[in-house]
Amino acid sequence: MSYDPTAAVDTAALQASAKQHMWPHFTNRKVLNDGIPVITRAEGHHIYDAAGKQYIDGLAGLFVVNAGHGRDRIVEAAAKQMKQLDFMPLWSYAHPAAIELSERLSSYAPGQMNKVFFTTGGGEAVESAFKLAKHFWKIQGKPMKHKVISRSVAYHGTPQGALAITGIPDMKKFYEPLTPGGHRVPNTNFYRAEEMGAPSNDLEAFGQWAANRIEEAILFEGEDTVAAVFLEPVQNSGGCFPPPPGYFKRVREICDKYDVLLVSDEVICAYGRVGDFFASKALGYEPDIITSAKGITSGYVPLGAMIVSDKVSEPFNSVENTFYHGFTFAGHPAAAAAALANLDIFEEEDLNGRVRENSPLFRAELEKLLDIDIVGDVRGEGYFFGIELVKDKATKETFNEEESDRLLRDYLSPALWEAGLYCRADDRGDPVIQLAPPLTIGPSEFAEIGGILRSVLKDASSKI
Amino acid sequence: MSYDPTAAVDTAALQASAKQHMWPHFTNRKVLNDGIPVITRAEGHHIYDAAGKQYIDGLAGLFVVNAGHGRDRIVEAAAKQMKQLDFMPLWSYAHPAAIELSERLSSYAPGQMNKVFFTTGGGEAVESAFKLAKHFWKIQGKPMKHKVISRSVAYHGTPQGALAITGIPDMKKFYEPLTPGGHRVPNTNFYRAEEMGAPSNDLEAFGQWAANRIEEAILFEGEDTVAAVFLEPVQNSGGCFPPPPGYFKRVREICDKYDVLLVSDEVICAYGRVGDFFASKALGYEPDIITSAKGITSGYVPLGAMIVSDKVSEPFNSVENTFYHGFTFAGHPAAAAAALANLDIFEEEDLNGRVRENSPLFRAELEKLLDIDIVGDVRGEGYFFGIELVKDKATKETFNEEESDRLLRDYLSPALWEAGLYCRADDRGDPVIQLAPPLTIGPSEFAEIGGILRSVLKDASSKI
Repeated sequence: MSYDPTAAVDTAALQASAKQHMWPHFTNRKVLNDGIPVITRAEGHHIYDAAGKQYIDGLAGLFVVNAGHGRDRIVEAAAKQMKQLDFMPLWSYAHPAAIELSERLSSYAPGQMNKVFFTTGGGEAVESAFKLAKHFWKIQGKPMKHKVISRSVAYHGTPQGALAITGIPDMKKFYEPLTPGGHRVPNTNFYRAEEMGAPSNDLEAFGQWAANRIEEAILFEGEDTVAAVFLEPVQNSGGCFPPPPGYFKRVREICDKYDVLLVSDEVICAYGRVGDFFASKALGYEPDIITSAKGITSGYVPLGAMIVSDKVSEPFNSVENTFYHGFTFAGHPAAAAAALANLDIFEEEDLNGRVRENSPLFRAELEKLLDIDIVGDVRGEGYFFGIELVKDKATKETFNEEESDRLLRDYLSPALWEAGLYCRADDRGDPVIQLAPPLTIGPSEFAEIGGILRSVLKDASSKI
Repeated sequence: MSYDPTAAVDTAALQASAKQHMWPHFTNRKVLNDGIPVITRAEGHHIYDAAGKQYIDGLAGLFVVNAGHGRDRIVEAAAKQMKQLDFMPLWSYAHPAAIELSERLSSYAPGQMNKVFFTTGGGEAVESAFKLAKHFWKIQGKPMKHKVISRSVAYHGTPQGALAITGIPDMKKFYEPLTPGGHRVPNTNFYRAEEMGAPSNDLEAFGQWAANRIEEAILFEGEDTVAAVFLEPVQNSGGCFPPPPGYFKRVREICDKYDVLLVSDEVICAYGRVGDFFASKALGYEPDIITSAKGITSGYVPLGAMIVSDKVSEPFNSVENTFYHGFTFAGHPAAAAAALANLDIFEEEDLNGRVRENSPLFRAELEKLLDIDIVGDVRGEGYFFGIELVKDKATKETFNEEESDRLLRDYLSPALWEAGLYCRADDRGDPVIQLAPPLTIGPSEFAEIGGILRSVLKDASSKI
C-alpha cells in the first residue's frame, strides 16, 4: 500500500487516475484528456517528468523555490522539527521555531515592523491584511473605513476577500458577489501608458499619474470609507510591472494624507526575488503591512507571513482589542524550521547580493530577444521578468482572444515545454511569458534560457 | 545561526522575543505579558513544554493529530518526498503523490464522489466549496443562486467567504462587510431545545424541527438565490452537537427539493474523528461536497481537500467550463506523501474501528462527571466530546459573560493546564470543555482524562 516517491511510475495508470480523480488548479479538465504533465523529481534548477525528461525550472515552481530544488538541508531541518514537535497551533500557544522566525523576519523588514502573524500561504496573508485593516480602523474610531484599492490585472489570491482585491474580472465573475469594497486603479504598465491616456514619454511623470489615480479613487469613494491600498512592489499578473521612480513615494504620501494603510503584497517579490528579503526595502518604501509566502521556505513546507508595523499592531497590545483571526496550520513547526534553514542559505550564499549583481545580465540576455518580431517588451526587476508578445511591434497591437489562445496554449506552452523550459505563458492581461527562476542560477543559465526562448519565439508569428 | 529544535531553550529569551515579535492566533496579546506556553516536544498522546512538563494532548493539537505525535513513519514519508520532489504546484501540472491521494480519498468517500480538489487547510476548503457552489449554479443557468445557509455558533473558517458562513457574530463584527449571502439557522443543540422553542422531549422531532428551519430559510430567501447549505456532521463550536436521528435525511430531502447543494464540512470530523474516514459515511448521508483538512496528514504537513460529487464536477469536464481557482501550496508533494503514510497507519491499526469500539467507553467515563454541580451536559460522537458547564443544573441557567470569563480564562484553562491536560475551554456559545484526543488512546487514558477533569471541575463552582 505504501506510496514510494522514488519508485518507477506507471504513467498510463497515473494518467487514468488523474483524469478520474484529481482536479488540477486553474486548469481546464480537458488537459487531463490529453495527458497532464506529471513531475516526479527536482534538483537544483531542474525538474523532471515521469519519463525522466529534464526541464529548466524557469518559474521556481510558481515563484516559490527561490533557493533551488534538492536542498537536503531544508528537508533535514523540517524532518528534525517534525520528529521533535510535529504540530502545535499558535492559538494561545507558541513553539520555538515560530518565535525565532518572527524575530528574524522583523529584523529583515523595513522601518518599524515588529509583529509577525503567520499564515499557511499567500492568499491567507492577503485575507489577514484585509481583515486587520478593517479591524484597525474600527478600533481607531473610523468604523466606515473598509474599502480596499488595488490595481488592474493584479493577482492577490483566491479566497473571497483576497479575490475582491484581485484585479482580474474573468477570475471573479463566476464567484460574485465577493467581499464588498474592492476598487481598481491603473497599474504601472508603462508600455501601455498611451492607451491609458497617461504620460507615455516620461516614466517618472507616468508614475506620478498612476499614483495620483489612487488619490482619485480615494476621493471618489470618500476617505472615510477606504481602509487600505494593496500593491505588489513589482506587479506580476500582466507581466512584471516595476514601479516607476517616485511612484511609491507618492503613494506613501497619499496614504498618509487620507489615513489609508499601505499594504505591500510581497507574496512573489519577497525573499530575494528582487534582491532583498523584502522588496519594499529594496525599492525604498515603508508599508504598514507586508504580506508574504512562497519563497519564505523556498516551498519545502507551506507557510505565509504577514508582517505588521508598530503603528498598526500597537492598538492590539491593549486588553480590549483581540485580532479574532487565525489558521490551524499557520506557522507550522516544520514550516518555520524550514524557513529558518532557507534563510540561513540566503545569508550564507548571499542570494540577495547574487540577484542584485546578476539581474542586469539576465535582463540583457532577455533584451536580446527584442529583435524577434513578436517580442514587444522586456521588463522586470531582480530575477523576475516578463516578455510581452505583440502582433505588431510598431503599433503595439496585441492579439485578439482567439489568436492569443492559439499562440499561448496551442503553440508556445507546448513548444517551450518540448524545448525543455518550464515557464508561464499567460494572458490574464496582454500575452506574456513570465520568468522567475531559482535565485541560484547565473549567466550560463540565462544564456540557456535565452536560447530556448529564441528558438521557440522566432517561429511563433507563423503559428498564429 | 542555525536553529536546532532539539537544543535546550532559553525560556526568558523566547518569551521576550515572542512578546516583541510573534502575533499568536485568536489570542489577546496580554497572554504574552503573562508568558505564553511554549511547546517544544510531542510524543504519542503527550505534549511537553519548555520546562519539560508533560501534558495529555486532549485536543490532538487542534483536532489535528489523529494518528498521534511522533510518527516517524509520516516524517520519513514527507522527507523522502521532499528529497525527491520538494515542490510542484497543481496549476496545469501534477505529481504522483497528489494523484494517488486523490484516488485514495475518492475510494473512502460516500456515494459517487470522485473528484478531489486540494487546498492547504480547512478554511481554504470551505472557500473552495463556496466558490464552486456559486460557479456550479451559474453554469447551470441559475446564476442568482449564491447564498449559503449555515448554523448558529458554527465555525467554518476565517477567510472572508468562509467567515460569512461562520455563525459566530463576535468573530465577524470587526471584519464586516463580509462576502454577501450568509444566513443562519439553529444548530442541533438538543440540550437547549426548549430555549429555542423547539420540541425538547423528543430528539427525533427536534431534529425534524431543526432540519425544517433550513427549508424555512430557503423559502425566506427564495430558492432561486440559495446555492448551498454548509453543515458539520457533528458541530464543534458550541460544544459538540451531534445530528439527531433523521436530521440529515430530512436535510438531504430539502436540498434536493430546492436545488441546493449540501456541503458536509468535515474539517474536524473526517479521518477517524467519529469512526470513519468521512463522517457523512459514518452517519449515513451523501453530501454534494465534502470539505476536509486537519487529520488528513495528522498535522505533519499542512493540507486540505475538497471532495466533489460527480453531479457537481460533471459540468467542469466540458471545455467551456474551468474552475478558476487554486492555491500555490495546495496538494504539496510532502503533504500528499504524509497523508498517504497517515492513511496507511489508519488502515493497518484500524483506527476507525478503534474509535467506534472505544467511543462508548470514553462517553461513559465523561458521563461520570455529570454528578458535579456545574457539569450540565456531556455530548459527542467518536473521540469528540463537549462538556457543557452550567450555573444551575436544574434550570440549565448558563453563566453571564463576566462569570464565564472568570470560570474559563481565570480558573479552568490554567487549572487544567496545571493539572497536565491540554484541552479547550471555550465560550463561543455556552461555556464548554472540548475534548478531541489522538485516536490512539484507550480506556486507561479516558480514566486519566476523567480524573483530571474531576479534580479541576469539582472546585470550579467556588471559583466563579
